[in-house]
Amino acid sequence: MHKSRLFAVVAILTSGGIAVRATASDLPRPKENWKDMGVVETSASPHARLHAVPVRAVRMRDGFWLPRMEAARLRGIPRLLGLLEEHGVADNFRRISGRKQCERRGPYFTDSDLYKWMEAAAFVLQWKDDPAVREMLDKVIDEVVAIQNPDGYLNTYFVDERKDKRFSNLAAEHELYCAGHLFQAAVAHYRATGHSRLLGAALKYADYLTTVFGPGRIEQADGHPEVEMALVELYRTTGRKEYLDLAGFFLDLYRFAARTQIEGHAVRAAYLCCGGADYYMETGKQPYWEAADRMWQDMTGRKLYITGGIGATSHGEAFGAPFDLPNATSYAETCAGIASGMWNWRMLAATGQARFADEMERVLYNGFLSGVSLEGSEYFYVNPLESAGGHKRRPWYDCTCCPPNVLRMLASLPGYIYSTSREGLWVHLYDNNELTWRLEDGRGVRVVQETKYPWEGGVTLTIQPDSAAEFSVFVRIPGWCVEPKLRVNGQDIESPVTPGTYCHVRRSWTPGDRLELDLPMPVVVQTADPRVRANLGRVAITRGPLVYCFESVDNPGVNVLAAAVPVDAKGEVESRTAYRADLLGGVTVVSVEAVASDYEKTSGGLYRPTRAGGMPKVRRVHLHAIPYYAWCNRGDSQMVVWVPFMPKD
Amino acid sequence: MHKSRLFAVVAILTSGGIAVRATASDLPRPKENWKDMGVVETSASPHARLHAVPVRAVRMRDGFWLPRMEAARLRGIPRLLGLLEEHGVADNFRRISGRKQCERRGPYFTDSDLYKWMEAAAFVLQWKDDPAVREMLDKVIDEVVAIQNPDGYLNTYFVDERKDKRFSNLAAEHELYCAGHLFQAAVAHYRATGHSRLLGAALKYADYLTTVFGPGRIEQADGHPEVEMALVELYRTTGRKEYLDLAGFFLDLYRFAARTQIEGHAVRAAYLCCGGADYYMETGKQPYWEAADRMWQDMTGRKLYITGGIGATSHGEAFGAPFDLPNATSYAETCAGIASGMWNWRMLAATGQARFADEMERVLYNGFLSGVSLEGSEYFYVNPLESAGGHKRRPWYDCTCCPPNVLRMLASLPGYIYSTSREGLWVHLYDNNELTWRLEDGRGVRVVQETKYPWEGGVTLTIQPDSAAEFSVFVRIPGWCVEPKLRVNGQDIESPVTPGTYCHVRRSWTPGDRLELDLPMPVVVQTADPRVRANLGRVAITRGPLVYCFESVDNPGVNVLAAAVPVDAKGEVESRTAYRADLLGGVTVVSVEAVASDYEKTSGGLYRPTRAGGMPKVRRVHLHAIPYYAWCNRGDSQMVVWVPFMPKD
Repeated sequence: MHKSRLFAVVAILTSGGIAVRATASDLPRPKENWKDMGVVETSASPHARLHAVPVRAVRMRDGFWLPRMEAARLRGIPRLLGLLEEHGVADNFRRISGRKQCERRGPYFTDSDLYKWMEAAAFVLQWKDDPAVREMLDKVIDEVVAIQNPDGYLNTYFVDERKDKRFSNLAAEHELYCAGHLFQAAVAHYRATGHSRLLGAALKYADYLTTVFGPGRIEQADGHPEVEMALVELYRTTGRKEYLDLAGFFLDLYRFAARTQIEGHAVRAAYLCCGGADYYMETGKQPYWEAADRMWQDMTGRKLYITGGIGATSHGEAFGAPFDLPNATSYAETCAGIASGMWNWRMLAATGQARFADEMERVLYNGFLSGVSLEGSEYFYVNPLESAGGHKRRPWYDCTCCPPNVLRMLASLPGYIYSTSREGLWVHLYDNNELTWRLEDGRGVRVVQETKYPWEGGVTLTIQPDSAAEFSVFVRIPGWCVEPKLRVNGQDIESPVTPGTYCHVRRSWTPGDRLELDLPMPVVVQTADPRVRANLGRVAITRGPLVYCFESVDNPGVNVLAAAVPVDAKGEVESRTAYRADLLGGVTVVSVEAVASDYEKTSGGLYRPTRAGGMPKVRRVHLHAIPYYAWCNRGDSQMVVWVPFMPKD
Repeated sequence: MHKSRLFAVVAILTSGGIAVRATASDLPRPKENWKDMGVVETSASPHARLHAVPVRAVRMRDGFWLPRMEAARLRGIPRLLGLLEEHGVADNFRRISGRKQCERRGPYFTDSDLYKWMEAAAFVLQWKDDPAVREMLDKVIDEVVAIQNPDGYLNTYFVDERKDKRFSNLAAEHELYCAGHLFQAAVAHYRATGHSRLLGAALKYADYLTTVFGPGRIEQADGHPEVEMALVELYRTTGRKEYLDLAGFFLDLYRFAARTQIEGHAVRAAYLCCGGADYYMETGKQPYWEAADRMWQDMTGRKLYITGGIGATSHGEAFGAPFDLPNATSYAETCAGIASGMWNWRMLAATGQARFADEMERVLYNGFLSGVSLEGSEYFYVNPLESAGGHKRRPWYDCTCCPPNVLRMLASLPGYIYSTSREGLWVHLYDNNELTWRLEDGRGVRVVQETKYPWEGGVTLTIQPDSAAEFSVFVRIPGWCVEPKLRVNGQDIESPVTPGTYCHVRRSWTPGDRLELDLPMPVVVQTADPRVRANLGRVAITRGPLVYCFESVDNPGVNVLAAAVPVDAKGEVESRTAYRADLLGGVTVVSVEAVASDYEKTSGGLYRPTRAGGMPKVRRVHLHAIPYYAWCNRGDSQMVVWVPFMPKD
């Protein structure tokens, strides 16, 4: 039944245009305007202003992100699967299918870790036909679908002696959260391959959920939101309104539309907002949008690290009080940064407003990317903005939610660069790549993007429509830049080029037209709202989209935690920049004039009168800063983002 | 039986000398060298270098402490008893004696809150024959002794349905902790009045404990140390070695003598060390002393706030990691400060070493005294060193351990000023008072102390021995002072006058001899060991024994949390001082040159480029500082102890 319905849906949706490449030949090819992002629908979302471009429509070229995506593909994906095997996460499935005799291992929600790995692998297959990844993924799918109950239920925890406990402890035991990740993996796999095996299992499970949950049935939502966005995604994939309605039912149980502040567990809160934004894009119900926007305002105005990290406190992995953003003890879980990125992407799709793209970029280049080592298979769970040492990325955590989440974000990254709307094409992020896609009127278009971003702010976009035609290109002008310039074929454009907006370039485009964007990247000194007590009297250094940090390994002989930066009355520091190809995979180093304080380490007691030698010796130095995302890749070190400043006469 | 044994003991100990005034006539007068401190024995402790002076031997005159003691007597004592009644703590006793039908209320350990109140009231009666206090205390004693079990057991929680649970959950339920506070209250009451009613009940309970606990009986200690020092005190009071042995038994269960670091719950750890030090002073067993000293070194070298507060973290109300001493989130429970004071007093008694007196003074004037309002009946539970507002003293807490603990410390304060040793007299603390006591050779001595301490460092001690005689006076030279001077009858003394020592003045004293101490009190700038990350790049201001803080109410228009202090290469700040009789009960205000940063409060977003107006405007101001203990007495305010410094050219 599921297979036949699925095929029918595909048949309905199939239409002309550029065919999406499918590796499968045994299935109808997916319709081209199906979503490849696993995140937000494009043409099928009637209340979204923007529509996503499939991951496979964007070919990344060597630049900033491709080496990281390749690290994920070549090292992250296989190494994490090995660890999921080693820790029994895959065996939990074999145990039920009878393929292996063993105890269940890992947290009750660890199925979701495997599902996120599957989604990551499926995204890889959308941009790289990697036989090794395909083989790994096929084997895992085989293990997963083998344990589906005849009624559709699929979970390794609520079996045997816990069989009767299904949906009995939703508040704590993440049952629907696991289901949501299964659904997302299934959609990503179907889009990658055209195969319906995993998607069929997901739909069977989702159908079961619609018979179990709802008014007059179980009227309870999961303690960990996630299934809502997955259900909307299944709705987008199949057109089955029951899934959308179930998502709305859960959102109402969370009283989503009545919420005014973002609070509690950061990943849960942001996933919930993803679901709310998704639901809005399909239904157009304004209260859901307004709640999402209110919470976004609360987050970005009062509860956000400059790195884009969210969830300040380890107590409940939660948002802290407004403006309570400690640096050394910041939690800023990697998963929460990812959740924020996903949420901002949805808000951007709904509106086309640049404020959401700015926040998405902030977290991608800083608080998300810090979550993974340069080598690609070690991860931070928490992302502090200051460390006295002892912090370390690890390949595995007992609660190993972050590692596969990092992989799926990296693997899906090509999908975040462009969108389409009725007016034309949108460019959100800058990196070397080539888009081969179509506008919403069906016209084919290629875009070649060339840049040294984020190290330099020059970007060239070569626009290749199938034939000359009038349409719009919306070019994102990041909120962080000053005096940006945009030219078409060497001519300054007439529209204003305003930071924090999309520059709307409407013209008749001829194949080979060149858009040249210039985003000057001076070293910028940032202060925080004074209600952020942790940053009072402190400044942070940014350049372009990157937050910088001072790491002890770059500053031998200086206590980076005790250094201060003189800032003149214009708010400027004395600085210089240098690109270093040999350092940390290639980074621009920012060096600033600073004052180092040399304390006597071990003498003088815990408290020392300055008069009696307790005063640290002060000397001028140049402090070297690296991008925050790259810290902690060279052994144990001390690190600080927010450094004290002193007025410079 | 108890009464007769008690009388026998009293008879044995009674000897000549100055009689301690007792209000009771129905009992033999207590022997004069019995301890009045409820803290450490004097002549009876063979391994103590110093011996305490009874509380009643010191008559406080108007100065720094007397108004606070009077506030405790006149407002703190009656108001807290009212709240203990209101919250059912006294009713818990009436419920068992059948005098009232009601439910038990409050935490399982709340008996101890009443016992601490009783001890405080008893200490008041040692220096002030206050009929109202006597009447309140007599009534409470009547309620308490009425519920003693025939076997001696006395507790309001382990009755009725929990009757069989006696001593079954020592780790969590504070049963012996309550017993310890009962014993201390009983000793204090006996010393105040000569009445044995409460002491008799305590001894009966203690005798019962000796039959229940011990090798081959229950071999478990309480989760909250306390009873150990109380048992030693009962031993000192009665000479019954069983009590001392039981204290040693418990100490060994805690592996006290093997401990190397101070850790865990701060009050428990410090009370345990009190017990260990007490046990050492009676037994001379060196490992107990060495453990206490090791833990003291750990505390003062790595885990102590400049205010004397201990227990940095709210997690378990515990000591944090070494050097982890956050300011805004410091816990520094008032009870922990008191426990540290009590522990330092014991270490001082054991050795006569000034380092312990320095720490006792530090906590008394700062981290302890901040625990109570100037008005005398509102209390801090936690004592942060920085606050963005919202902190408030309260008359009551659901766990109301701190309020009665503050009262008993204030009420017992006269006992901490002097000691005796075989050589003569010791002076530890400075305030206006009159001592009428005797040296250990039995010679009567009066000392009149006159000073404006802690506002000025001049102290005059007029020594009045019964007749001219050679003996020593040990004058404490605080560790914080610079270039102190000490004169006898106008002549500089020959011995060195070294900060952080006792100056040993041995001579033949004639009635009317005057010791004049001069302790210069410049404004001192302090830095912390650089391993205290919270204080890197920051300084604190102290003067004399007082830690100062900048409170917003004294600095209108300045964000005190964003101000910085220029410090020159010599470690000096520009400052002036002024005594203000009208302010906060009379304080010396310290004003320092500083740089205020005026941030735009509400505009500009959470993060702001300094170039675009995000740079705070900087201006020179004079910041006014008040003693830390006095903060938060004028409504809600912001406060900071450790302020950023900047090098001054």
